[in-house]
Amino acid sequence: MAEEQQTPIRFGILGCADIARKLSRAITLSPNSTIHAIGSRSLDKATKYAQSNNYPQSVKIYGSYDAVLDDPDVDVVYVPLPTSLHLKWAVLAAEKKKHVLLEKPVALNVGEFDKIVEACEVNGVQLMDSTMWMHNPRTAKMKEFLQDPANFGEFKSMTATFTFAADQDFLENDIRVKPDLDALGALGDAGWYCIRAILWANDFNLPKTVTALPGTIFNIAGVIISCGAALNWEDGRVATFHCSFLANLTMTIAASGTKGSLHLNDFVIPFEEKQASFLTATESGLTELVTGWVPLPSQHTVMTELPQEVRMVTEFSRLVKGVKNGGVVEKMWPTLSRKTQYVLDAVRISVEKGGEAVSLS
Amino acid sequence: MAEEQQTPIRFGILGCADIARKLSRAITLSPNSTIHAIGSRSLDKATKYAQSNNYPQSVKIYGSYDAVLDDPDVDVVYVPLPTSLHLKWAVLAAEKKKHVLLEKPVALNVGEFDKIVEACEVNGVQLMDSTMWMHNPRTAKMKEFLQDPANFGEFKSMTATFTFAADQDFLENDIRVKPDLDALGALGDAGWYCIRAILWANDFNLPKTVTALPGTIFNIAGVIISCGAALNWEDGRVATFHCSFLANLTMTIAASGTKGSLHLNDFVIPFEEKQASFLTATESGLTELVTGWVPLPSQHTVMTELPQEVRMVTEFSRLVKGVKNGGVVEKMWPTLSRKTQYVLDAVRISVEKGGEAVSLS
Repeated sequence: MAEEQQTPIRFGILGCADIARKLSRAITLSPNSTIHAIGSRSLDKATKYAQSNNYPQSVKIYGSYDAVLDDPDVDVVYVPLPTSLHLKWAVLAAEKKKHVLLEKPVALNVGEFDKIVEACEVNGVQLMDSTMWMHNPRTAKMKEFLQDPANFGEFKSMTATFTFAADQDFLENDIRVKPDLDALGALGDAGWYCIRAILWANDFNLPKTVTALPGTIFNIAGVIISCGAALNWEDGRVATFHCSFLANLTMTIAASGTKGSLHLNDFVIPFEEKQASFLTATESGLTELVTGWVPLPSQHTVMTELPQEVRMVTEFSRLVKGVKNGGVVEKMWPTLSRKTQYVLDAVRISVEKGGEAVSLS
Repeated sequence: MAEEQQTPIRFGILGCADIARKLSRAITLSPNSTIHAIGSRSLDKATKYAQSNNYPQSVKIYGSYDAVLDDPDVDVVYVPLPTSLHLKWAVLAAEKKKHVLLEKPVALNVGEFDKIVEACEVNGVQLMDSTMWMHNPRTAKMKEFLQDPANFGEFKSMTATFTFAADQDFLENDIRVKPDLDALGALGDAGWYCIRAILWANDFNLPKTVTALPGTIFNIAGVIISCGAALNWEDGRVATFHCSFLANLTMTIAASGTKGSLHLNDFVIPFEEKQASFLTATESGLTELVTGWVPLPSQHTVMTELPQEVRMVTEFSRLVKGVKNGGVVEKMWPTLSRKTQYVLDAVRISVEKGGEAVSLS
């Protein structure tokens, strides 16, 4: 630990995205990580960003993304750029032997993502997407429940919802509504988390078919701002999700198995930073005259000294340190990214085909 | 009130269904209602049922349904018979000038239900379906929230889930899995409540289209034991539901408006008899660094001295008393029943058409 703190993994950040502010704090709070550099196409903007986010004086400030990639002291490049730029900059970073922490959606489509994966593999660098809730200790506790044959049983059905009420400025100007930037819109942003959650709950077994639900809403530029889909597995498992920029912040999962149920309303970002809860129920029944439940659901609270994004950064740096010390890259993370993107692509294709079922087999 | 207690509305019960045990207790607890008679095709069965449910000695016990209808002192007939028998017995009851409290689903299809409605109208008797949660005071409180432009805003999306894990005996022998009895299976039973909840949240405005989701599961007799659907309105509102006999007891609603959200996990039968809760959130946002929610959702608890099924019986008897005193029947209740059945029919048709969208306009 002492040694780790002495030689933290050094992050270079591409661009001045809002989400990079959260990540910057996470890097700072992470015991094995440090911010080494930030680059923007505007040196002035990067300088102001570094100041307003209280970066230490030691952080290098560059007027280009290339300069970050060229800094030999940068171990990891964090890529929170618009999705349309992921392919270019993630591949360039890998070619410069930088490990890549990539914002979601990881690419515009799985074909692009495969090129990123290939570049990372060829260059021996670690790749992970920045889906923070995967690293909350609550997630592991919920997974224990879902995998417990006695308490949850076999997975049967699930719904996942992620919506937020974007303001007029967002709906007109945010990169997530621009076809040349984040062309996947609400599906790529909020939908990513729903799809990831559904796959996570299904041990990342891919559904057999993906069917967009009626009612997709596009903005005038043709970008999805509200949509949903049904996912179906060969064995009868079903899931639906809904994602939107048009409704009050909602982050709900409800999953039912043959023996148990799981509920939470803050799956992407927990209500509070240092603790997170979920509800479980097992073999729920009703009183003799069907006037109440026996047993009642149980609430579980999981404490986390380090917030989920700090745990993500710490885990990524741990993997990077392993590679730097001669170990192999962890392929699980890009595999999960790819599956999420693959299903997301299928939803997009089904939307484009007017709700036709898209086969993944 | 004193007079009401002196002349309670007298219920006659057709058959010895399990659900009638709950209703019998509700009639007994209701201040303006009393059990007057029960009829079964087997006098012995009815006698044993009356004993095991502690019916007073004064209750008439008949060996046929007809005898209940012929008893001049019966004001109301409660019909918890298999759905396939609703048309016959509800119409006969109306023709005998009995008011009709009808279990759900109200009929095998809306055409049948219209005949029941017509018989009730012609004979001037009150008709209501036995959807108990509609009468919980929590329901009115939730409705206040959903109708509040400042706190919920415009309805955008909703999911409703009602599942329970039927045991092997149920899956083989219950009337709800028999094509000649409750032919609508899980859709008619659990799905009824989901559809009712979605319509209720949308002020009973009918959707434009109803689309069955992929993954319907039938039993070997062809009865639905798990299914779901998407409901879509002209103005972009969307809802999905899932109902099943194959997963742990789940009764979840999540609804999102432009400004607020509503969540509860016990919408059909509250966890506890004398109090019921729900969660609301309004203008939910995130902390500056997106690490937590501001404000947090709020929990609301509504007390009810009389359980929801007792309030339903009391309301029905109040309406019946009004009619007996020369007032007119309340048409709202059969209208809500009809809309629920109409949408339910559309789901069934969409299931039969392999998930084709069914237009309701």
